[in-house]
Amino acid sequence: MNIQNLSRGQLEERLAALREKYDSYKALGLKLDMSRGKPGAEQLEITNAMLDPALLGNFKAENGLDVRNYGLLDGIPECKRIFSQILEVAPENIIIFGNASLSIMYDYIAQCMIFGAGDEPWCKQSGIKFLCPVPGYDRHFAILEHFGIEMINIPMNESGPDMDMIEELVKDEKVKGAFCVPMYSNPTGITYSDETVRRFAALKPAAKDFRVIWDNAYCVHHISDSHDKLLNIFEACKEYGTEDNFIEVTSTSKITFPGSGVSVLAASDANIAAIKKRMTVQTIGYDKLNQLRHANFLKDKAGVEAQMLRHAEILKPKFEAVLSAFEKNLAGKGIAEWTKPNGGYFISLDVCNGCAKRTVALCREAGVTLTGAGATFPYGKDPDDKNIRIAPTFPSRDELCKAVEILCLCVEISALEKLLA
Amino acid sequence: MNIQNLSRGQLEERLAALREKYDSYKALGLKLDMSRGKPGAEQLEITNAMLDPALLGNFKAENGLDVRNYGLLDGIPECKRIFSQILEVAPENIIIFGNASLSIMYDYIAQCMIFGAGDEPWCKQSGIKFLCPVPGYDRHFAILEHFGIEMINIPMNESGPDMDMIEELVKDEKVKGAFCVPMYSNPTGITYSDETVRRFAALKPAAKDFRVIWDNAYCVHHISDSHDKLLNIFEACKEYGTEDNFIEVTSTSKITFPGSGVSVLAASDANIAAIKKRMTVQTIGYDKLNQLRHANFLKDKAGVEAQMLRHAEILKPKFEAVLSAFEKNLAGKGIAEWTKPNGGYFISLDVCNGCAKRTVALCREAGVTLTGAGATFPYGKDPDDKNIRIAPTFPSRDELCKAVEILCLCVEISALEKLLA
Repeated sequence: MNIQNLSRGQLEERLAALREKYDSYKALGLKLDMSRGKPGAEQLEITNAMLDPALLGNFKAENGLDVRNYGLLDGIPECKRIFSQILEVAPENIIIFGNASLSIMYDYIAQCMIFGAGDEPWCKQSGIKFLCPVPGYDRHFAILEHFGIEMINIPMNESGPDMDMIEELVKDEKVKGAFCVPMYSNPTGITYSDETVRRFAALKPAAKDFRVIWDNAYCVHHISDSHDKLLNIFEACKEYGTEDNFIEVTSTSKITFPGSGVSVLAASDANIAAIKKRMTVQTIGYDKLNQLRHANFLKDKAGVEAQMLRHAEILKPKFEAVLSAFEKNLAGKGIAEWTKPNGGYFISLDVCNGCAKRTVALCREAGVTLTGAGATFPYGKDPDDKNIRIAPTFPSRDELCKAVEILCLCVEISALEKLLA
Repeated sequence: MNIQNLSRGQLEERLAALREKYDSYKALGLKLDMSRGKPGAEQLEITNAMLDPALLGNFKAENGLDVRNYGLLDGIPECKRIFSQILEVAPENIIIFGNASLSIMYDYIAQCMIFGAGDEPWCKQSGIKFLCPVPGYDRHFAILEHFGIEMINIPMNESGPDMDMIEELVKDEKVKGAFCVPMYSNPTGITYSDETVRRFAALKPAAKDFRVIWDNAYCVHHISDSHDKLLNIFEACKEYGTEDNFIEVTSTSKITFPGSGVSVLAASDANIAAIKKRMTVQTIGYDKLNQLRHANFLKDKAGVEAQMLRHAEILKPKFEAVLSAFEKNLAGKGIAEWTKPNGGYFISLDVCNGCAKRTVALCREAGVTLTGAGATFPYGKDPDDKNIRIAPTFPSRDELCKAVEILCLCVEISALEKLLA
């Protein structure tokens, strides 16, 4: 029953019935949170064994270094090796950082602002711009806004961002780069197609100091058995000699502990050399005890994959709960569309144009917290006011089922309200 | 026997004898390192118990937060409380960061460059300057050089930097701040007197965006029973309302593990608010598992003091070995002066003017690595070429005794060479 086909009377009747149901939910005084891309309590348990001090042995990294003491800027070899296997990048092109890849990205942009990326410092060039696939990750946008870099929305389609638009825009030398989540994108869950990755690699930007932050946060975060595969950006770049245009980051935040993981940067020889040079001024080295803990717990790529299967076992029923509720309550009504990701942490829900804010507000009133409408767009401004990021991982499955039931109700109420307005 | 009083013939005779001794040392093919302010192997052992997972209990901080997950920007309360006791600063004025206070300082200066400190960004103000007490810490100077901030040498005397000079220089609005190690200063080991701290607090700089980085790295790092006491800078500031001029940092790098400690920033209400605001863009939070590990291992100020007594037991004989060798081999000869610190990690050795580089080179040839001559001055330039930083902590006591014997020999050889030149 597509509600677009209902008569005004039928719409009014249906809205009244839904409002009654809504009020009864509201009366329950619920407090449910679907706002955060945060692992749930169960997921934290599967990493506790990493805290066994036996994993640290005699505190020596395989290069003989005592990990308790000062020294070693770029990470212990056994930790680099694991990410070398996962990202398919040579260990020399990898640096292990602290507990948050967000800090790597922030700092990389800060460095470009003060020292530039091989050309004049960005802070001395006026009117610089970044390309932002939308819907996207609010914390990427926050970094760009913080540094006063203008953001340009690039619509996402099923194979990634609109590459025609990007190829056109990079002809402007003020366009200095882009922030991407190429695999299980936040929030759409889409993985860039091989063609999209190749077109990124083939970009010939006018700016000599063009940098794409390739935030591969969900590189091993599959929840489906038939999982996505992302083409290695640096392999794709080889044909065009464009390796310097890409800074890839990832972390173990959603592999081991969100608060106490290790983060990773992969880049070209030239970029690694430049980053290491300023790191000598910036730090004496990151937490190597935590690196050794990670290396000996995860062991290798196969170890990481085994760990991710344990996460998937917990996450799969949660994603299914949301998707089946959407299917049951929203499908065929002409009021919503959503993604069905094979991995990552989010589902992207598009409601009727102009209804996202109202839907989120209705949910809030009924005790269900969602990511703010607009958060998935630069400056918090969704031009169509239609996108809502659904984060199914943190609540328990029971809470989630209740929350998504209320969400579906609010999606339909706001659609009916709009049709009747 | 002051060698200044010897005849040329006597000098020549003595130099020949010392050179013979030097050659016999050289023939041993030693490899001794006194260059690094790095805890020794024994010191690392006394913190191993911090890795017992039992210390992490049920992973809950006292505010109920699961430390394994995301969240909490500014640090867990029990960790803040310990540093609140040590620094005598309210917990609200403390932020716990990652494993290196160097990164806090680097980042603070980077922020001032891009966003300023309440006035125009420093990168948009030309010719800005910082005051650098000398001899000082090479990594402070490296940060300032990296950002292109001009450094002005301020001589240290027994009660701290020359405050007359500082009071005069801050009348220049281009002078934006200073880097200080106010307690057991690197490398002199001097602690600023109460009067020096009060004069810092009373400064009325012309610059509205004046910031002193108060690097209290050695705040609890006593090696003598009669230890120094540093006046609380923020207490001193109250009288003058100058709290905003000071950013204090410290860390547990030399309390627990050098590579895996926690670092701490203390500042005024206004500065804390500004720092927290940009932290929301910069990180999701620092490693709280490591914070809980630290809090439950160290417990409180008394726990930290007990831990520092264990370090002092190991360090005291090393410092004594150096000082007694200096006394035996250098005293009364008119060729060297040195500090006798009650804490910290260094002894500052002044040789004859123009002899530091030669002394360090002679040592290197004989297999003894020292901190490079000049490293304790901005731009690596010691105007008198006389200061050498001695780091007695890393070598074993036996190695240290041999190394310092050779050092004393080289000090005298270079002095004799100069007198005879």
